[in-house]
Amino acid sequence: MGFVVEVLRGQAQVDFVPNALTGVVFSAGLCAAGWEFGLYGLAGTAAGTASARLLGVDRDRITAGLEGFNACLVAVGCAVLLGARHLSTALLALAAAALVTVLTAAVARLLATWQLPTFTLPFCMTASALTIAAPGFRRVWHEDAGPAALPRAADGPVSLTFTDLWHGFFANIGQIFFMPQWYVGLIFLLGLFLAGRRAGALACVGSLVGLLTAWALGTPAEQVAEGVAGYNAVLVTMALCGVVLVADAWSLAYAVAGAVAATFLRPALAALFAPSGGHAFTWPFVLVALVFLAAAPVFPRLRRV
Amino acid sequence: MGFVVEVLRGQAQVDFVPNALTGVVFSAGLCAAGWEFGLYGLAGTAAGTASARLLGVDRDRITAGLEGFNACLVAVGCAVLLGARHLSTALLALAAAALVTVLTAAVARLLATWQLPTFTLPFCMTASALTIAAPGFRRVWHEDAGPAALPRAADGPVSLTFTDLWHGFFANIGQIFFMPQWYVGLIFLLGLFLAGRRAGALACVGSLVGLLTAWALGTPAEQVAEGVAGYNAVLVTMALCGVVLVADAWSLAYAVAGAVAATFLRPALAALFAPSGGHAFTWPFVLVALVFLAAAPVFPRLRRV
Amino acid sequence: MGFVVEVLRGQAQVDFVPNALTGVVFSAGLCAAGWEFGLYGLAGTAAGTASARLLGVDRDRITAGLEGFNACLVAVGCAVLLGARHLSTALLALAAAALVTVLTAAVARLLATWQLPTFTLPFCMTASALTIAAPGFRRVWHEDAGPAALPRAADGPVSLTFTDLWHGFFANIGQIFFMPQWYVGLIFLLGLFLAGRRAGALACVGSLVGLLTAWALGTPAEQVAEGVAGYNAVLVTMALCGVVLVADAWSLAYAVAGAVAATFLRPALAALFAPSGGHAFTWPFVLVALVFLAAAPVFPRLRRV
Repeated sequence: MGFVVEVLRGQAQVDFVPNALTGVVFSAGLCAAGWEFGLYGLAGTAAGTASARLLGVDRDRITAGLEGFNACLVAVGCAVLLGARHLSTALLALAAAALVTVLTAAVARLLATWQLPTFTLPFCMTASALTIAAPGFRRVWHEDAGPAALPRAADGPVSLTFTDLWHGFFANIGQIFFMPQWYVGLIFLLGLFLAGRRAGALACVGSLVGLLTAWALGTPAEQVAEGVAGYNAVLVTMALCGVVLVADAWSLAYAVAGAVAATFLRPALAALFAPSGGHAFTWPFVLVALVFLAAAPVFPRLRRV
Repeated sequence: MGFVVEVLRGQAQVDFVPNALTGVVFSAGLCAAGWEFGLYGLAGTAAGTASARLLGVDRDRITAGLEGFNACLVAVGCAVLLGARHLSTALLALAAAALVTVLTAAVARLLATWQLPTFTLPFCMTASALTIAAPGFRRVWHEDAGPAALPRAADGPVSLTFTDLWHGFFANIGQIFFMPQWYVGLIFLLGLFLAGRRAGALACVGSLVGLLTAWALGTPAEQVAEGVAGYNAVLVTMALCGVVLVADAWSLAYAVAGAVAATFLRPALAALFAPSGGHAFTWPFVLVALVFLAAAPVFPRLRRV
Repeated sequence: MGFVVEVLRGQAQVDFVPNALTGVVFSAGLCAAGWEFGLYGLAGTAAGTASARLLGVDRDRITAGLEGFNACLVAVGCAVLLGARHLSTALLALAAAALVTVLTAAVARLLATWQLPTFTLPFCMTASALTIAAPGFRRVWHEDAGPAALPRAADGPVSLTFTDLWHGFFANIGQIFFMPQWYVGLIFLLGLFLAGRRAGALACVGSLVGLLTAWALGTPAEQVAEGVAGYNAVLVTMALCGVVLVADAWSLAYAVAGAVAATFLRPALAALFAPSGGHAFTWPFVLVALVFLAAAPVFPRLRRV
């Protein structure tokens, strides 16, 4: 029973919330996009949590779900990028979810030197390694060609319709779990409000900042509507206001600046990985959040929780 | 008035010199290449210095101009790479110059663990992110195609004329601010001699080492004449002899070895970034200088200032 | 005489063994692949060891051969990748082998914060910089075209013959020194057994894990037979079981997990470097070994030597 709660909390920790009920709603959201995704998410979180128990990781981290969220994202990422219905993908997702425990321990120890949390850095590293290595293995990669390509300048219309905007508003929250459907994002948002009004409100603020920044910079409308442009803004806003820094006007302004930076940074990461066949994942969020938190002690106006 | 001096010192700190008069000469040099570049440089330094004041950064750093030089380079880099006469470039340059304050604070805190200075690492990170992300935004990027391309083997003549040599000697100093004109480099060199004979002499030594290394390795003559081959050697020589290590024969030899390494490293960084559309900036200088300084305490012959 | 022993130990330290006799056997193995490689290996190790003496590095490190193995690999790598019979390659190999001393000192100091060893990280950084920069210099690069190319999905047969398997078993050990010939790997393995039964046995275990993982994932048969698929598994197994962690059942299981991860990671590193013209070298080993060691203190079942 304790294990089930840990796994559900692990799902919810993707959005910084140690709440099992939110984890149930997140699973429902994944199933709304496809039952395989719901299954991969739960199985990945379970594999990560179980391997943390086996290796003897500190119980407090496991109980809070902190050993599950990176594994959850790795498993769902495998399903989305390598095809959920291959046996090879399922085995790889389980193995990777277990290995993420080691990566989390390593990254946590290195970053502890500066009192920084890992966020989804272990997921980003694992998912990048997986997707870039995959085309090199014939039993893992089931497409004819690999995904490597030189990045090109954006084209396509940039003026946004009302539909683009409200789809994008919810899809920004769905894309945190790789899902472009607006209704999946809406279910995730309900889960966040279940965990507390602040979590839900900050996700909304982040999504709006992401939309506005993407529009101002001239992001192609399709990327805005599918949430590709704005998911990092949601994560940065939630991470910088309330999770590590005390939630006040200063940290909110700081979080909004970070959300703008992460929205700008996303195509840079996409272009950096494109020639090798990789993806941006949540690298923009992780890099911006770590930089802004590492800098925080230098600015006396920002207070740590 | 204090703010004006801080901004001018910030300009001069690009070459490690906290001297407002040198900052005036550097501005004149930028204006000789184009008045827009002079304006972007001053505005960027001012934005960086102002945001450091607003966020409450330690006064000593601001007074010494240490919160201005990365912002200066970011703004001039925007003007050179995105087109100085677009409103989008101006707004982006100001925003980026302000954000560099956060990045500087973060990098300074991380590197303080090993008593290492930031050098232009915050500039390199920001400028790389900006130029690689830019083609992804239609209101930021005003060309038809993006700059991404696979690197090719060097071609073109490698034998140097006397004109190549003396142009290159000054252009090595001009390219620190992205400027290939020999007379711009000459103005910068005058500014350095204004700050002190040692700063000017070290810049000359570094430029000569860069020229000689580039010739010995067979660098295409055009790159030598425009200072592309040697600007990192100038920066490494100034940084390793006198700024952090006591200036003596040992640190000079160490600096020359570093200058050779940085000259070699430049095409590696260019090739690493080329497929994503990025540039080498001063990454070779930053990486070599940080490695050589991190190693210095292991070698008893080198003494820290 | 002391210097000769230090150089031979430096050769042997490529495989974590401070044994001069093993160094002699390794040299013989290199000569079996080509006398130039044997010469480059010895000259590189000597240059690295000598520059460490000149700069005044701690005597214990030099005596144990720890200042030689990265330089050895850098020099052999130059011979393999730039052509052993060019004067430019010989000069570059010596200069790079000397510079590796500085890089080793820097990396050792940074990683000491977490009590982590450098492994072959200085070699990987130097060799990557060298091979990616080389095509930019006409007196260094003697081919018409550079090596940069977008990575493609694996093709070719993946079913392994018995010949592929036993060739691969030995070649996994030979590829640590860039050599694809099975008999070179066999000589290296004899050298390891000379140093002790455990070193030899662990190399065999690592090679088997590499073979099995490569087969299970569907690695092209040619890569398996030439040892490209499995050399990182050999290194990881030796590094994680006995060198830093106490050799017991737990650290062996941990090492095997690491060997699987490194075998998976290899094509990712190859794809990351391919568009710039670089190679995977022992990056997969270094990254996996550092991550697994950084994580080790979190797991109470693993004990440090």
